[in-house]
Amino acid sequence: MNTITGYTGLYGIVADPIKHSFSPMMHNTAFQYLGINDVYLAFEVKPEHLSDFITSAKILPIKGFNVSMPYKVDILPYLDELTLQAKLCQAVNTVKNKDGKLIGHISDGIGFMKACEEKGWQFQNQKVVVLGAGGAARAIVVALTQYAKEIVIYNRSHKDWIQQVQAQCDCPLVLKSLNDIQGLKEDLKDSYALIQTTNVGMAPHEEGCLIPDVSYLPQHIKVADIIYNPQETKLLKMAREKGLEYMNGEGMIVYQGAESFEFWTGQKMPIPQVKKV
Amino acid sequence: MNTITGYTGLYGIVADPIKHSFSPMMHNTAFQYLGINDVYLAFEVKPEHLSDFITSAKILPIKGFNVSMPYKVDILPYLDELTLQAKLCQAVNTVKNKDGKLIGHISDGIGFMKACEEKGWQFQNQKVVVLGAGGAARAIVVALTQYAKEIVIYNRSHKDWIQQVQAQCDCPLVLKSLNDIQGLKEDLKDSYALIQTTNVGMAPHEEGCLIPDVSYLPQHIKVADIIYNPQETKLLKMAREKGLEYMNGEGMIVYQGAESFEFWTGQKMPIPQVKKV
Repeated sequence: MNTITGYTGLYGIVADPIKHSFSPMMHNTAFQYLGINDVYLAFEVKPEHLSDFITSAKILPIKGFNVSMPYKVDILPYLDELTLQAKLCQAVNTVKNKDGKLIGHISDGIGFMKACEEKGWQFQNQKVVVLGAGGAARAIVVALTQYAKEIVIYNRSHKDWIQQVQAQCDCPLVLKSLNDIQGLKEDLKDSYALIQTTNVGMAPHEEGCLIPDVSYLPQHIKVADIIYNPQETKLLKMAREKGLEYMNGEGMIVYQGAESFEFWTGQKMPIPQVKKV
Repeated sequence: MNTITGYTGLYGIVADPIKHSFSPMMHNTAFQYLGINDVYLAFEVKPEHLSDFITSAKILPIKGFNVSMPYKVDILPYLDELTLQAKLCQAVNTVKNKDGKLIGHISDGIGFMKACEEKGWQFQNQKVVVLGAGGAARAIVVALTQYAKEIVIYNRSHKDWIQQVQAQCDCPLVLKSLNDIQGLKEDLKDSYALIQTTNVGMAPHEEGCLIPDVSYLPQHIKVADIIYNPQETKLLKMAREKGLEYMNGEGMIVYQGAESFEFWTGQKMPIPQVKKV
């Protein structure tokens, strides 16, 4: 049924490549379910045209857009305003066009927290171990700092952002080397959750796993892996076999979309309808 | 039902103002009926942003667009190629994005001819009187020259385009003054059709009419008025009361859209479904 008129507004996702993205289906389903007369498309834009894309966003009826690889950081200089989350992450995955002013936000960390909430996971006053220190880890850590008692980040190398975020929050952030495998085992013993944010274990290298064996996972630890392909990484298989609560990256994708949707429209995304498609 | 994905392409109409346009409903209905996974929106663009719009058309997944007032002539310098119709009209209402190359076309005159065809009107070797010499008249005259024996254009002032078009076609084009009301009466006597292309008689000035009274309309002349608001102008009312065949501007709108649609997609627009909405 055609409901598109001259008043229909446009949303989209700018990235390269992006046509395979689930985001158009997610947001269009939500628009249609809620009777919002807007459409969401994929904008595959080459790096040399990012600045032209910003111009397009201002002169076309583009009400908002998502930003994905490789533009989450490159887009910052073009934005007029950043939310606190986006400032702390120095990255943006959601932009709202407010009367020609572009406001950047990042919904990845909040999306992760909401996916955890759906499972009943509560990080208040808990110690958490995070594997990896890339953009996804940063977004999750920034969101976690509002709840956790302590966050231990295991990464191969040093990352400046950890000190920058530490300067803005009370929650202690500790960086340790992934080579310190004994320290990791010790940290996991009194941690509430282990959050895997690297691409180790992602298809087509599904045999990869930063946790050497199941003995590293104590009883009652919760295990999240932000990978969703495969749906069950080697790490999650270990968690399942040990009877632990675990979660892959699908929930984070849906809830980061829901957070973007709410940032744009002020309305809750109808999650059950969106999950169906 | 949501069928929009990351592969969905974009069409639209660029003009100012434009949000009230019927074109989005027309083309989206046709896309959906034919299972074409594209959408058509209205792009209300200010004159100072026309050049940015062209950039947008090249970097976004815009497969084609219509052009309406006030950009039908202003857009010419931005296009890479023109069809013969567009060259003769020196105006464009349809642009196809062919791998980044913008090809301009004008579907108004062809649309008018198709609306006439639907009514069974045949201009082969006929004399036709056209009232007005603006952009719409030019598009109609250019299309008519392929069929008519002679075209007499009545206008208040001289127009250079008539000589330019004359230089490119065999059909004699004659320009006469609208003040020559006796000449008009004589020309109508042996004309097959009278085509009214000015805004005289358009709402809110519905009392206007360039034909002084019904005695100017001989038996068997066909009367077309490209105005569609009101649906029946004073001129068409005269024609109806005299039992003549007549047509308002609605058919031209539908068929110019159909011609644009075919220019973009290579497919016929499903006219009955489009007329329903």
